[in-house]
Amino acid sequence: MLTGRLAQQIEFLVEADKLKNIIRRTPLTDNSRLENSAEHSWHLALLAMTLVEHVPERVDIGRVLELVTIHDLVEIDAGDTFAHDPIANLTKSERERVAAERIFGLLPIDQATAVHALWEEFEARQTPEARFANAVDRLQALLQNMRSDGGSWLAHRVTRAQVLRRMAPLETALPAVWPFVLDVIDRFCETGAIAADS
Amino acid sequence: MLTGRLAQQIEFLVEADKLKNIIRRTPLTDNSRLENSAEHSWHLALLAMTLVEHVPERVDIGRVLELVTIHDLVEIDAGDTFAHDPIANLTKSERERVAAERIFGLLPIDQATAVHALWEEFEARQTPEARFANAVDRLQALLQNMRSDGGSWLAHRVTRAQVLRRMAPLETALPAVWPFVLDVIDRFCETGAIAADS
Repeated sequence: MLTGRLAQQIEFLVEADKLKNIIRRTPLTDNSRLENSAEHSWHLALLAMTLVEHVPERVDIGRVLELVTIHDLVEIDAGDTFAHDPIANLTKSERERVAAERIFGLLPIDQATAVHALWEEFEARQTPEARFANAVDRLQALLQNMRSDGGSWLAHRVTRAQVLRRMAPLETALPAVWPFVLDVIDRFCETGAIAADS
Repeated sequence: MLTGRLAQQIEFLVEADKLKNIIRRTPLTDNSRLENSAEHSWHLALLAMTLVEHVPERVDIGRVLELVTIHDLVEIDAGDTFAHDPIANLTKSERERVAAERIFGLLPIDQATAVHALWEEFEARQTPEARFANAVDRLQALLQNMRSDGGSWLAHRVTRAQVLRRMAPLETALPAVWPFVLDVIDRFCETGAIAADS
């Protein structure tokens, strides 16, 4: 029987497999199904590697990749909370705090503390790495919706004001990408996939 | 209309979404379905972050995360080649070479060159980072099979000799994990999920 640090690490890694069953609201670009939080996290890593040249601050890309890799693990217990669901968002931070304790707590204590700190860094958006990681998290959803004829915007009657509020951090985190984001929002307002503000 | 570097980067990132539809032979640990190469790549990043303390060489974890993030992108065109399919493996390297040209070629030329170099580094297994990335790629499949009652070993009548050959690089890349790997193989030989050598 395996004991000690390695046993705890393996249990954590096996538990993490459950993130592949956490379903988001955004579809794949071919509209064949909704994406899950594990493949979404991978996609964020690729966005970060590809778009890092547009970040106006100096960022440690290795740390950004660590942030996006662990950022959604709490959803194994807390579920994916849709950005545009005001009721679910009331309880999100408490549900995720409890989830973080349990899931990161599977690791040896020093690693649990380190991963917990990474997750809190992502959530707090105070470091350049966390701001960039949060920016690609929002941009990725926009790309998925853009290439699936409206995706979660259309399915959940999201309004222009809601999308603009969700995307707002991109204006400073990735200013070179911001005109593209505004253009996509305008185009999907015109088609009606993004609802007019009431 | 978007033009220039950002347009190329967005096209690459949208194309990458297709990796979520590339199906591997290994199941999720709950046996509900086979996993895809995008969520698998995310899992490798988490394995790398968690197990890096066991690597006997000095490794740059940020570079390891870059390697695992891009290592399977060629499968968008070349498909996932099962490790224990000798016929498919005859043509694997040529299929993947052509895929790399097209897929990485969507990026601006300097980035295409850099990502191509990362992929070749992973494939060549000559750097400490590439050896570790390859080791977690093999270990992750073992964990999936271990927690799904035999997974791809059972489904494809894989033999003990084949599993040992596939896992062999772990002996030097992650020596602290090697006894655990041997123990898992022994246990699944006993249950018959791994076939006896003929």
